[in-house]
Amino acid sequence: MDVMLRDEIYDQAVKWVLEAGRIIREKMHDPLDIEIKSNANDLVTKLDKETEQFFVRKIKEKYSDHFILGEEGYGDELSSLDGTIWIIDPIDGTMNFVHQKRNFAISVGIYHDGVGEIGIIYDVMANIVYHAKKGDGAYKDDVRLPKLMKKTTINEAIIGMNHFWLCENSLVDERHMQHFVKQIRGTRTYGSAALEFAYTAEGIIDGYISMRLSPWDVAAGIVLVNEVGGRTTDIDGNELHLLKKSAILTSNSDYHQHILENLQKGRK
Amino acid sequence: MDVMLRDEIYDQAVKWVLEAGRIIREKMHDPLDIEIKSNANDLVTKLDKETEQFFVRKIKEKYSDHFILGEEGYGDELSSLDGTIWIIDPIDGTMNFVHQKRNFAISVGIYHDGVGEIGIIYDVMANIVYHAKKGDGAYKDDVRLPKLMKKTTINEAIIGMNHFWLCENSLVDERHMQHFVKQIRGTRTYGSAALEFAYTAEGIIDGYISMRLSPWDVAAGIVLVNEVGGRTTDIDGNELHLLKKSAILTSNSDYHQHILENLQKGRK
Repeated sequence: MDVMLRDEIYDQAVKWVLEAGRIIREKMHDPLDIEIKSNANDLVTKLDKETEQFFVRKIKEKYSDHFILGEEGYGDELSSLDGTIWIIDPIDGTMNFVHQKRNFAISVGIYHDGVGEIGIIYDVMANIVYHAKKGDGAYKDDVRLPKLMKKTTINEAIIGMNHFWLCENSLVDERHMQHFVKQIRGTRTYGSAALEFAYTAEGIIDGYISMRLSPWDVAAGIVLVNEVGGRTTDIDGNELHLLKKSAILTSNSDYHQHILENLQKGRK
Repeated sequence: MDVMLRDEIYDQAVKWVLEAGRIIREKMHDPLDIEIKSNANDLVTKLDKETEQFFVRKIKEKYSDHFILGEEGYGDELSSLDGTIWIIDPIDGTMNFVHQKRNFAISVGIYHDGVGEIGIIYDVMANIVYHAKKGDGAYKDDVRLPKLMKKTTINEAIIGMNHFWLCENSLVDERHMQHFVKQIRGTRTYGSAALEFAYTAEGIIDGYISMRLSPWDVAAGIVLVNEVGGRTTDIDGNELHLLKKSAILTSNSDYHQHILENLQKGRK
């Protein structure tokens, strides 16, 4: 992707993200009109939809040749990653948004011919922007995030994950996962994939596993984690396919293989 | 406890907590001299100790007839709850303090003849003080926290808990707990008992369970949760004994009995 063009798109994207965040903060105390999607805990609000529509309107107006892949379905139906694609989660962590009125994020990843060029994750209530351009490093607001620290022993790792990894499930052997969480220093559950990617990039957790994430949950986070030397794959160690849902691991590269092996042990 | 005296102690305690927080923020980037306590994941730093010593010095100077129960052992050895007792965790969430440099708290509960009169939980890096006086309501900074909302269905609950509840353990039936976490809307793991009490009082989670907490982990939180109509007991439903470690449940009162029943199902 042309560097000057990318810089312009990046500046524009950050502006729109901040504007969308401001609108969310203004409107979030109005009635939310919560709907339930695929299951009782998969929530969507009027503001999820309005925020995505805001991005679609802005992008189609200014970049009519770009494509959009968005959680709420106002973007395009895509069968290929050719061209420039904005991959958008208007409110990542909707359960937090509904119950906590904080700890949610706007996530925007911009990919060109399948390559992650720009990642922006905006913690709306903390007013913190995590942002990265491929090859140019990752930032938390104006502060460049250092490369992730060299790690040697898994016993000191803190891993983001939800509780379903330890319950009977179709992906991994829960008994082995119970053994795994006793090996490591600790686990955390924050309820926003985008923020858990950002925290991994920041090094405040050493990795994050999730059973079923969509492209919009991970697109921005992958770019951020790459820029600090981390890795993101599916739980078999393959590169993610950005038009499909996947079970994912993002982590400090020093831990990646070790965690993958644990996810595979006793695999069903 | 005399109300005028309590108000004076309260104002003084808040001042000391804020001062201790300021000192922690100043010193936290010095080398931490981390020690490992009872197990590899139970950490203590020089700043935990120095902060407790700060409180002990201040309290003994101004209130020479008060007692102190502190995590790091610089207070008194107590066998009764008679008199006025400051129950202090200088840094609650030491693992977060070490790994994240945020998401930890100073917790100060002040009890008189066994009754919780004052609770102060200071999220040091967010610079947010949760505080309460018995009978006078709970506050987040200057904003009074509303009474917890009426709840009817456990399916909408978000519960704070760590992952060990779902692994083989000596307290509860982990298979039943795996069933329980699938019934509720979600779980969160934040890594600071004091903050999870504060979040319960704020209503951003509906309850918190922990397997083994000490008086200093819960003393302030109990006062806060009481003031918004919540309840704290051990996992058998008994009042907590403030000179012992306990497995605890603090929650919205509407959920308390239901969660207790779940903790007891299939109990070993």
